[in-house]
Amino acid sequence: MTDHRSHQLKARRLGIDTHSEAAIFMHKNCPVCRSEGFSSLNRILVSARSRSIIATLYQIEGDMLACDEAGLSDSAWARLDLKDGDLVRARYAPTVESLAHVRGRVYGHALDQDALNQIIPDIVAGRYSPVEISAFITACAALPLSLAETAALTSAMVAAGERLHWNSAVVVDKHSVGGLPGNRTTPIIVAIMASLGFTMPKTSSRAITSPAGTADTMETLAPVELDSTAIRRVVEREGGCVVWGGAVNLSPADDVLIRVERALDIDSEGQMVASVLSKKIAAGATHLVLDMPVGPTAKVRSTDAAIALSRNLADTAALFGLKVRVLTGDGRQPIGRGMGPALEARDVLAVLKNDPHAPQDLRIRALELAGALLELSGRAPEGAGAGLAASALDDGRAWTKFQKICEAQGGMREPPRSRYRKVIEAVADGLVMQIDNRRIARLAKLAGAPFDKAAGAEMHVRLGDRVVRGTPLCTLHAETPGELAYALNYQDANPDIIRIAEQ
Amino acid sequence: MTDHRSHQLKARRLGIDTHSEAAIFMHKNCPVCRSEGFSSLNRILVSARSRSIIATLYQIEGDMLACDEAGLSDSAWARLDLKDGDLVRARYAPTVESLAHVRGRVYGHALDQDALNQIIPDIVAGRYSPVEISAFITACAALPLSLAETAALTSAMVAAGERLHWNSAVVVDKHSVGGLPGNRTTPIIVAIMASLGFTMPKTSSRAITSPAGTADTMETLAPVELDSTAIRRVVEREGGCVVWGGAVNLSPADDVLIRVERALDIDSEGQMVASVLSKKIAAGATHLVLDMPVGPTAKVRSTDAAIALSRNLADTAALFGLKVRVLTGDGRQPIGRGMGPALEARDVLAVLKNDPHAPQDLRIRALELAGALLELSGRAPEGAGAGLAASALDDGRAWTKFQKICEAQGGMREPPRSRYRKVIEAVADGLVMQIDNRRIARLAKLAGAPFDKAAGAEMHVRLGDRVVRGTPLCTLHAETPGELAYALNYQDANPDIIRIAEQ
Repeated sequence: MTDHRSHQLKARRLGIDTHSEAAIFMHKNCPVCRSEGFSSLNRILVSARSRSIIATLYQIEGDMLACDEAGLSDSAWARLDLKDGDLVRARYAPTVESLAHVRGRVYGHALDQDALNQIIPDIVAGRYSPVEISAFITACAALPLSLAETAALTSAMVAAGERLHWNSAVVVDKHSVGGLPGNRTTPIIVAIMASLGFTMPKTSSRAITSPAGTADTMETLAPVELDSTAIRRVVEREGGCVVWGGAVNLSPADDVLIRVERALDIDSEGQMVASVLSKKIAAGATHLVLDMPVGPTAKVRSTDAAIALSRNLADTAALFGLKVRVLTGDGRQPIGRGMGPALEARDVLAVLKNDPHAPQDLRIRALELAGALLELSGRAPEGAGAGLAASALDDGRAWTKFQKICEAQGGMREPPRSRYRKVIEAVADGLVMQIDNRRIARLAKLAGAPFDKAAGAEMHVRLGDRVVRGTPLCTLHAETPGELAYALNYQDANPDIIRIAEQ
Repeated sequence: MTDHRSHQLKARRLGIDTHSEAAIFMHKNCPVCRSEGFSSLNRILVSARSRSIIATLYQIEGDMLACDEAGLSDSAWARLDLKDGDLVRARYAPTVESLAHVRGRVYGHALDQDALNQIIPDIVAGRYSPVEISAFITACAALPLSLAETAALTSAMVAAGERLHWNSAVVVDKHSVGGLPGNRTTPIIVAIMASLGFTMPKTSSRAITSPAGTADTMETLAPVELDSTAIRRVVEREGGCVVWGGAVNLSPADDVLIRVERALDIDSEGQMVASVLSKKIAAGATHLVLDMPVGPTAKVRSTDAAIALSRNLADTAALFGLKVRVLTGDGRQPIGRGMGPALEARDVLAVLKNDPHAPQDLRIRALELAGALLELSGRAPEGAGAGLAASALDDGRAWTKFQKICEAQGGMREPPRSRYRKVIEAVADGLVMQIDNRRIARLAKLAGAPFDKAAGAEMHVRLGDRVVRGTPLCTLHAETPGELAYALNYQDANPDIIRIAEQ
């Protein structure tokens, strides 16, 4: 049927961003829709030359498209490698066989390695609709994944992407379970570990829901979009790097799954474990330290949850010969002062340069995590890791190494400064009792972060600080007056983001 | 924030059909996306004058939209009641509170009436994304709904829509669990019951995945798009009607849920029960007969499944004072000869007119179901229902009543005849061993049904028939040569849709 010549349509790029989801737009009266009996939201197999993808159909009436045209989303356009005017064919998508396993899982049948080795590549290839991915994630949350299933999922996710290999027996890595704004320890830890001779090829993500991801922050200091060849060159020369993971194809399924998980705000613990570990195993890590902030507005909200998640992570990692140590920490307030790419980069630089005004909480957290890696890898005896890390920071080795890493990644640069600022002051005397991580992050985003690198929020107080009326609580940074006004509106509507207990 | 004047955009109708899902398209660089920090697939609260809806955002690059425009899908356009050039405002959608109950359900907490009374109206109002609806459906399938939950869901679904009331103590209704092509007993049953003085206000659906829904078939005989006032007029005059349910707002949540269920091909039994019963309770039914074909390619595949589903239906219905009888039947082959609106209408007319060549299986099935209603309502003693129904059919009362109903609905008409036909013949001598309901329906759809009313497939054989090489098996009907060729391609690729055992 695909060869039915009369059913070809002229491809047209519509410039619609649908993330990884592929979409095709056809006129309701086009010959293909007529003869195939398509209707909107049908899953369609779209073929061009040798390539084909499954896309969701949206039918159009009116003049946006001609009857002999097929409009495609950017993701569909890229996957089919199209040029304007190329001919595409469309027919009902064949059944995606692996969905039978997902249905089975919904009805309570465990997933084995074979099943997951079919499901995950189908998800990576875009053969699952968001609705189908949602069913997979929900089933794995409603009927939690066993350790065996979690391990099989992890291994399937690793196998579905690129895998990095290194010429050293010990490859260290760090991951933060997240949820805590400004927690930008990674560049500091990489600098420390690399300066001590370790191999630490760190791939990081951009912000999805936060004001800045490590990749966004690092990008204000050096280029981060390096392919695996470039990464290898940097790491072989300097021992470490801090690059954007998106340019290397490590556990690509994770990026697809995480979007739907965030949209649903459903956490399947097994999924989270597979998500974290698959990226690290694919990156070639042998020793991993996990930063797990715990607090009412952090991702992990209780110590019990932290303990359960830590055990699940360690047990699964062990099956892959990966050594893991989890460090829980205070998640009740942001770490460092800045929230937003450039502002967070400044905090990082201050710590690396041993600036007396550097945020101490960021320095201490970075030393704890680097210390844990030094102990986990056997370089330092238990309890002596943080001290060894501190020495590398204090005598400037880490700072020197960091500059070399930036040069190797393409050249160090100065983080930009914002053009518009507004200080938010305390309206009464009292004690800083509570800081809402989620809403303070939202404030930084409304000011323009991470879209505008220089935008965001800069904290001037911490929990327990005594303030008087007029004391600066935080400064908003923006690139346009509109965005600044916009963030201020939100602040006015949410005066309790930083809660002051009057006395 | 909604009043932030600088953030208004000019509404533009894009003519994109997204079914009930609302979609908004904005330029990536438009001031709203910039200042709000929107990205594609965000859920956006779109407001115009006094109305507001939640829509999924798709960001556009290039010239499809200007930076001061917002493109809207047809569903969004209709819900906001927009005119071209109207101004709309957009901001992040507020949290949909009822999603917390859905998450709770995913983690195993039962849903009570309060929770469902929040969830269902939110779904009807389009506040749930398809991904969120999928999570709700999957959770209810992975951890099956209890009887209490099923009843609460049913009552919430009834409450979320319109409800019809009738001035008679007995209001009969009929529903087919479906999955069987050509099973068009409804118009016959309505004619019989109304001719016997019963009230049977039948609302039916159009085809979603089948070659014809009862509404599509009836529409070739009379108008079916009547609002509740018109329905009341017809039923008060003739006792019965056969109309499209879409024009009355009965259990609107069902239409939204069923689309996602079909897309997932996941059946939650509790959902199915609530779906069937909520429509009937909202329609004011007191006595309901359920046609449940059982067969390997029907919706209900085993007798055990049929028994379990029947009990669940009866138990739940009892809580609403609705009397239910389930009739299982042979689901191994289509009923009647036609598949497609006009072809099925001809079968219906032949039975009503006591045409000697009328398909007997359709006549018998209709009499069984009407008989069950007569017994269930106490009009006929057990075992005498079908006989009483047959008398109304044989002496022409049903046919007379049917014509009056068609007149009352707006005038009776002649079903159209197809312009192109092709007979598919047996390629060998033998016995008809198997007929694949799903693929024969697909064949009828490829020929143009239900889009082309006259198109479809017409069966000439039944299971067990002896055929010789050249015996007509079925005739394909189409409105265009292309569609006919298209269906024939499929037939060539699937020669075993009607399986002949050679001897």
